[in-house]
Amino acid sequence: MNPQESSAVLAFDVGGTDMKVGLLPDGSIATGSSPMRDVRRTRTPRDAALPGDAVVDRIVELTEQYRQTHPDVDIAAIGVGVPGLVDEKTGTGVLSVNLGWQDYPFVHRLRERLAVPVALGHDAKMAGEAEFRLGAARGCSDAIVMVIGTGISGAIFSDGRRVVGGSYAGELGHAPVPGSDGSVQRLECIGAAGAIARRYTEATGSAADGARSVLRMAQDGDTAAGRIWSEAVDAIAFNIAQCVAILGTETVVLGGGLAEAREALFAPVIARVDQLLTFQPRPRIVPAELGQNAGLVGSGLNARELLDSGLARL
Amino acid sequence: MNPQESSAVLAFDVGGTDMKVGLLPDGSIATGSSPMRDVRRTRTPRDAALPGDAVVDRIVELTEQYRQTHPDVDIAAIGVGVPGLVDEKTGTGVLSVNLGWQDYPFVHRLRERLAVPVALGHDAKMAGEAEFRLGAARGCSDAIVMVIGTGISGAIFSDGRRVVGGSYAGELGHAPVPGSDGSVQRLECIGAAGAIARRYTEATGSAADGARSVLRMAQDGDTAAGRIWSEAVDAIAFNIAQCVAILGTETVVLGGGLAEAREALFAPVIARVDQLLTFQPRPRIVPAELGQNAGLVGSGLNARELLDSGLARL
Repeated sequence: MNPQESSAVLAFDVGGTDMKVGLLPDGSIATGSSPMRDVRRTRTPRDAALPGDAVVDRIVELTEQYRQTHPDVDIAAIGVGVPGLVDEKTGTGVLSVNLGWQDYPFVHRLRERLAVPVALGHDAKMAGEAEFRLGAARGCSDAIVMVIGTGISGAIFSDGRRVVGGSYAGELGHAPVPGSDGSVQRLECIGAAGAIARRYTEATGSAADGARSVLRMAQDGDTAAGRIWSEAVDAIAFNIAQCVAILGTETVVLGGGLAEAREALFAPVIARVDQLLTFQPRPRIVPAELGQNAGLVGSGLNARELLDSGLARL
Repeated sequence: MNPQESSAVLAFDVGGTDMKVGLLPDGSIATGSSPMRDVRRTRTPRDAALPGDAVVDRIVELTEQYRQTHPDVDIAAIGVGVPGLVDEKTGTGVLSVNLGWQDYPFVHRLRERLAVPVALGHDAKMAGEAEFRLGAARGCSDAIVMVIGTGISGAIFSDGRRVVGGSYAGELGHAPVPGSDGSVQRLECIGAAGAIARRYTEATGSAADGARSVLRMAQDGDTAAGRIWSEAVDAIAFNIAQCVAILGTETVVLGGGLAEAREALFAPVIARVDQLLTFQPRPRIVPAELGQNAGLVGSGLNARELLDSGLARL
């Protein structure tokens, strides 16, 4: 290696619509909340017959572009975040209903093509990892990062480490919560931004332009909107109280589109969690800090950890 | 050390009424589910003014007795399990409402008196540790051990390690669950053996001789007993489904008095958990295996781990 050369990992965040890529240079962590360099965004390629291969081809192509644009940078590893179910240990995309793959060996294929170590992670968990190490939960030992958008997913940290749990940990959107009618519902069906809009339309027959408009109507005194917002708050708070009771969670980071409601979400969630807990210390409930690039940062950290662990193999 | 001497840890399980003590010899793990030697039971000493000191005095006295009875055994460390809230890292009994201490430095006091390394743990979590390492959850990576007696407490394992979570992890009895009337209740107030008997009396005005008699009445067609048993099952299953959604739990061990109901508990709990989960693999739900000495075995393992970790100090 040329002594003038600097080292970095190249991170990818593969979303349902777009994928992002950026460099995480060695030693860039201390520089603040935006450690990524040369972040680019492109469409996620789709191929109904070979959905995993299409993504791998694009990652290989982008890696070549970055090698050409940054000839002075040694790309020491690749970090990739993908949606769906992910087996991080084997580097497999177990299932993405949206993008179409099933049991696709991302790490194996990328290693063959790129000849560098590759770390695969779940996109929302990578975003959680970034918040845990560099964002709103930095310095914490027991935390959850809940990403509330169209659906709800999360990353769980206990005793300073992310819980992997056979790849099913953190699927908070599928956690049971009490419905208002005495039934049991999934958190995602009441608390997600997508559910809030859908439930308003179901209740009133009027279209709602997203959770944001339901909140606005609630604030203007619309009874149905108020009830639906408050049920979403209760469901989210219920799940947070579960995490505290099971894991002794001390810090809760809320991210995703719904967290942009800020006080209209945080104040009632904090109050409801307080009602639901008994003798446990109340968790700190705070907004995510790293914004849209959190998943990319987390994938970069994951790749760097692979290098540091000494487990990196070709 | 005499080369003929064998090495062991001495384990204590301090309960609300009785305390147990026994030797866990080195290398005795492989011999099966009952690795303790010379188990003795004695009353837990109580002293309203100095509740922690009274227990320490008794532990010191018993340790001397064991040293005399087993002159050929080198007692290399002491493991102690106590009820209430426990800070394992600092070795402190944070709070026991029943036995009366608050912020009592068990490890510090015992080290001063006994001049051997001391490991302190929470009694139910020590029982969980024993089930995880030697009992019904051995070989598992992601498990919970739920002890259902007068109250409900648990031990949580993820990725092969027990979750400590600032000493509040595993307080499952305090987890919120939906009540039958649309309210939110604590699991312990519906699912514990104590609650089942109490709720039957509240509902009918008739005394119940423990959860066992409520179950018998339910099996004989008593409607109130049937409803209360079934609500207990639902509450326990609800909490199990939470653990699966949050942690990807694969194995659930149920212990304590209520687990003695066997199929009358396990069959409906398994069916209800199946209804509550969506795409997650169903956890294996099995009875505890180590019986009454589980807490003692776990305290012994905890002491041995302290020795093995190299963190043992005087």
